[in-house]
Amino acid sequence: MADLPVSPLAPAAFPELPAIPGVRLATIAAGIRYRGRTDLMLAEMDEGTVAAGVLTRSKTRSAPVDWCRTQLGHGRARAVLVNSGNANAFTGRVGEEAVRVSAEAVARTLGCSPSEVYVASTGVIGEPLPTDPIVKAMDAIAGKLSADAWAEAARAIMTTDTFPKAATATARIGGTVVTINGIAKGSGMIAPDMATMLSFVFTDAVIPQPVLQSMLSASVDQSFNCITVDSDTSTSDTLLLFATGKAGNPASNDAGDPLYADFRRVLDGITRDLALQVVRDGEGAQKLIEVTVTGAEDDGAARRIGLAICNSPLVKTAIAGEDANWGRVVMAVGKSGEAASRDDLRIEIGGVLVAEGGLRHPDYREEEIVPHMKGREIVIKVDVGVGSGSATVWTCDLTHGYIDINADYRS
Amino acid sequence: MADLPVSPLAPAAFPELPAIPGVRLATIAAGIRYRGRTDLMLAEMDEGTVAAGVLTRSKTRSAPVDWCRTQLGHGRARAVLVNSGNANAFTGRVGEEAVRVSAEAVARTLGCSPSEVYVASTGVIGEPLPTDPIVKAMDAIAGKLSADAWAEAARAIMTTDTFPKAATATARIGGTVVTINGIAKGSGMIAPDMATMLSFVFTDAVIPQPVLQSMLSASVDQSFNCITVDSDTSTSDTLLLFATGKAGNPASNDAGDPLYADFRRVLDGITRDLALQVVRDGEGAQKLIEVTVTGAEDDGAARRIGLAICNSPLVKTAIAGEDANWGRVVMAVGKSGEAASRDDLRIEIGGVLVAEGGLRHPDYREEEIVPHMKGREIVIKVDVGVGSGSATVWTCDLTHGYIDINADYRS
Repeated sequence: MADLPVSPLAPAAFPELPAIPGVRLATIAAGIRYRGRTDLMLAEMDEGTVAAGVLTRSKTRSAPVDWCRTQLGHGRARAVLVNSGNANAFTGRVGEEAVRVSAEAVARTLGCSPSEVYVASTGVIGEPLPTDPIVKAMDAIAGKLSADAWAEAARAIMTTDTFPKAATATARIGGTVVTINGIAKGSGMIAPDMATMLSFVFTDAVIPQPVLQSMLSASVDQSFNCITVDSDTSTSDTLLLFATGKAGNPASNDAGDPLYADFRRVLDGITRDLALQVVRDGEGAQKLIEVTVTGAEDDGAARRIGLAICNSPLVKTAIAGEDANWGRVVMAVGKSGEAASRDDLRIEIGGVLVAEGGLRHPDYREEEIVPHMKGREIVIKVDVGVGSGSATVWTCDLTHGYIDINADYRS
Repeated sequence: MADLPVSPLAPAAFPELPAIPGVRLATIAAGIRYRGRTDLMLAEMDEGTVAAGVLTRSKTRSAPVDWCRTQLGHGRARAVLVNSGNANAFTGRVGEEAVRVSAEAVARTLGCSPSEVYVASTGVIGEPLPTDPIVKAMDAIAGKLSADAWAEAARAIMTTDTFPKAATATARIGGTVVTINGIAKGSGMIAPDMATMLSFVFTDAVIPQPVLQSMLSASVDQSFNCITVDSDTSTSDTLLLFATGKAGNPASNDAGDPLYADFRRVLDGITRDLALQVVRDGEGAQKLIEVTVTGAEDDGAARRIGLAICNSPLVKTAIAGEDANWGRVVMAVGKSGEAASRDDLRIEIGGVLVAEGGLRHPDYREEEIVPHMKGREIVIKVDVGVGSGSATVWTCDLTHGYIDINADYRS
């Protein structure tokens, strides 16, 4: 498809990602679907690296997702290979075979076991993934591995993305400073269920695999599992977190150990940053929408109400039209299926109290929120008046751009 | 909003609806929201009429929905009053009061009890419904009641609809011929949950109220509960079925009595016809999409898988683009949460076998279905290979027209 203009919600600049000791990356144009387009990314990790991951719960998950789930059983990792252009989903045994052949090619080249090679694919569904271009490109891509190729890596995994997505931060574990780098892709088919489209996070911290997995799962529940672009859950959602252990920090086998408090906080910041970048690049997005739900039965109910609002085409088109149509927010709360007290509902938009006690506030004047509706970031708060559960969920508006992109993505 | 062009999927002509003994209708421009627009419909039924109904399960249901649910407890009916322009939803006690005042005005004018008056409202959410115009219009509208005002009635309840919706048929109960007339409205906020936007069906048959209710509930499960335009469930969904008993047919207290077999078949045809007319008038619709799911765990699972496909913006935009992007159908099956055997999935589009055994069929050539994709009616069949549940679900495509309509409906 034609090149899309960069989303108006894109961050001002791509961040500077430092090297992560024990991680080297490279990209190449392997010609998987199109010639001359960078479509293959390889990251090599030093021995001793452990992996945590969350993967789509789709019943029609891709072959690479099945492969990664198997390897997360032991959690040792030496490499991750990612291609764009073809999702290797709904490809039957041919698809499984393609993953095995790719992992074996990486293992041969890097001198590790195929079971230590994680694989992810993104692109068209239902076309067999050709492995010849991947196998042939292996020597060349391995020869380019470097500690600094983060921007190229973020770019190599893009499909309908209009900007590459990355985040970096440092955290303290005991007296040791560790670094976390993450990259992500995704802009359509985004309603992650336990993971996002594709995201890869790397750290040099020493963290036992079960602890790493527990931290990642908790972090995803507040970030990737709280975003939606179009309510469509991908067959390929994959988030992998690799810890090389090169930082030599003190470690603990208890995920709740205060030793990890700062690392957790920073990891949560990274996953949220990456998840929000996915929403900011939502297909056709002109506005970022943040919905905070309070007063729900529990946090899960609050998240489901938030997602009902964020997945409502009527809410999203109203916001695209800069119309403070809060009646549609009421509708979406009602259809969520979660407990809500209609006659205690309270709604705030852009800090202005719109409705309280189940009806429009007597002092509310629509003119007050017109400037907020014209902005790039729309903030909605809803209290449903039955309990103390809360959640924040993010989406983007639904515009003509989404239709343009998706009415002819394949052609 | 500006007048919309009539949907290209509209029926060729509005059907001729005969009189139903015991039913008289009238409409009027009461000035509820706009001047000079017909916005009030009143139907009067003779003494002895019984009502059955299905109403939205939304947690933020409107005041008229609550009122109707109460009256269905006894099921006696003498009138139904419907206004467009204002949904009287999310209006708190003021809203309840507005329903009571309206029902009392009708009762006073027609000489019945307010509890025999059913009320429905459609239009904007969150604005208090002014009752003065309704009360003032009562004498005038009652003076116009006639047995032939079906087309006017269907027109009076429209909002963003581009054509009035009606259906008629006769059935035999014992040796007696009875008639069923139905009208409906709706084109957006359509993902009914136990009912549709607004639909009113009338018959002169003698049918005890509990039997009528049981027939209606079963009928709705195969019709209005199997359509979706945009996944958004209205606060106001109301379907009421009135039986005046004027036909004098033999009756039974057993809903399963073979006596009613023909009536049930005809009623099912009417509800399906009306439901499909709502989809044919889906906001921005250019194509009608029929999805049949087989091989599911049970019929409910099949319906939920069908709705996941029909609610997927990616499936709907692909069809708008006349792209046979069946990979998105696979994705939607996967996200439905229902059991499905990925490696046994079978997909047919327009009668052409696209995928079988969990991957693309070797003989499939996309050119074969291009003519089907260019047509007005798209037929998709999916077998998910785990059981014997089946369902058919209908929707329309997602086009620029939907965005145009909804980015500025209120203004």
